[in-house]
Amino acid sequence: RREEMAKSTQLIDNEVFRAYATYTAIVLLKMMLMSLITAYFRITRKAFVNPEDTASFGKGESAKKFLRTDPDVERVRRGHLNDLENIVPFVGIGLLYALSGPELSTALLHFRIFTGARILHTFAYLIPLPQPGRGLSWAVGYSVTFSMAYKVLKTAWLL
Amino acid sequence: RREEMAKSTQLIDNEVFRAYATYTAIVLLKMMLMSLITAYFRITRKAFVNPEDTASFGKGESAKKFLRTDPDVERVRRGHLNDLENIVPFVGIGLLYALSGPELSTALLHFRIFTGARILHTFAYLIPLPQPGRGLSWAVGYSVTFSMAYKVLKTAWLL
Amino acid sequence: RREEMAKSTQLIDNEVFRAYATYTAIVLLKMMLMSLITAYFRITRKAFVNPEDTASFGKGESAKKFLRTDPDVERVRRGHLNDLENIVPFVGIGLLYALSGPELSTALLHFRIFTGARILHTFAYLIPLPQPGRGLSWAVGYSVTFSMAYKVLKTAWLL
Repeated sequence: RREEMAKSTQLIDNEVFRAYATYTAIVLLKMMLMSLITAYFRITRKAFVNPEDTASFGKGESAKKFLRTDPDVERVRRGHLNDLENIVPFVGIGLLYALSGPELSTALLHFRIFTGARILHTFAYLIPLPQPGRGLSWAVGYSVTFSMAYKVLKTAWLL
Repeated sequence: RREEMAKSTQLIDNEVFRAYATYTAIVLLKMMLMSLITAYFRITRKAFVNPEDTASFGKGESAKKFLRTDPDVERVRRGHLNDLENIVPFVGIGLLYALSGPELSTALLHFRIFTGARILHTFAYLIPLPQPGRGLSWAVGYSVTFSMAYKVLKTAWLL
Repeated sequence: RREEMAKSTQLIDNEVFRAYATYTAIVLLKMMLMSLITAYFRITRKAFVNPEDTASFGKGESAKKFLRTDPDVERVRRGHLNDLENIVPFVGIGLLYALSGPELSTALLHFRIFTGARILHTFAYLIPLPQPGRGLSWAVGYSVTFSMAYKVLKTAWLL
């Protein structure tokens, strides 16, 4: 591996960066999955928001009744928004963290805990689990991102 | 070009990265445009959400009637949120994909189809076009991001 | 410093990149703070959205009354969404801008104005300040991102 790294200046040959790429792809795919779950609940619960989406159910009043909110749809949407609010900082700060020269083992620890916490958060939100299940999984992911931000600021600080 | 690349280790001299930078800037600017369209509809439809935004219409009850939702404003906002949900994964996974060493032609194909699909999606949402216009344009962009994620995970996999 | 840079091809040793890392970490941490402020208002205003979040207030009807929207909570949530809509483009376009070889002083000017504008925007939203306070701070951040996108497209353009 050292030989390989000596030959290459490609980021993708750096092990910390490869770990970052792997976990970032996983959490972003997990976030994308929320769109499919929303679509699944919209179709099975027949709960839409755009008039053009209910056209296949007929015209006029018969279709209008499907323009409504559904608790399950709204729950998935809240989970999706929470993903955006938390995964966006992870992806941005995580990239800078991966470039700040952390130990591979420390970096893996951060990425693994964050990814596990966000997967747990999704289950806690969708099942739903009683609190503080969702709150704790949210706090763990939040803390990991905070810890990476600290390392980034310590290494890069130039105001 | 080859000479230039030999002299430089700058990412911005790599053609795949330049293509990524170009298309990412375009889709992010397109997403930012949604803010301006929302503001346009809020002002022309006189539909606001913050009391301080209606102060120029007078005080008390006369201004309060402009604190309301408007179908056109809500439609643009849904398009904007859909952009966030789909363009964030493209930007994150696309960066890793651009660094994973794809062929320039393959990378351009991914970036072009995604960008075209998201521009179509915006038109399909705002006009609005009958379904499955919006659904298909969403699915095409989603699939492109999925395909890039597959390449990233195949190249970088380090769990 | 020059010696250090000569020895290293690490991005994190590039001063423009260090400035980008610093300001990106700051604005993303600021965005993350919105989650804590939302939680603070949800708890102090007793305004929740998930039934499982009100379980500690008792069972049945006594807990149901806390499933409601509160103007302060909604205000923070709008500020948070506005952050997502504006900070995501900054992080994405800013990275490409930092890699496009700008002068350090020009880059610092962009990053500082954007960061200042977004912090002002949050205060303008949460206090709230009378308009056009919030509108102007939004427009300044928006314009900075636009200016960086122009530099990225001029440098990287490959369609």
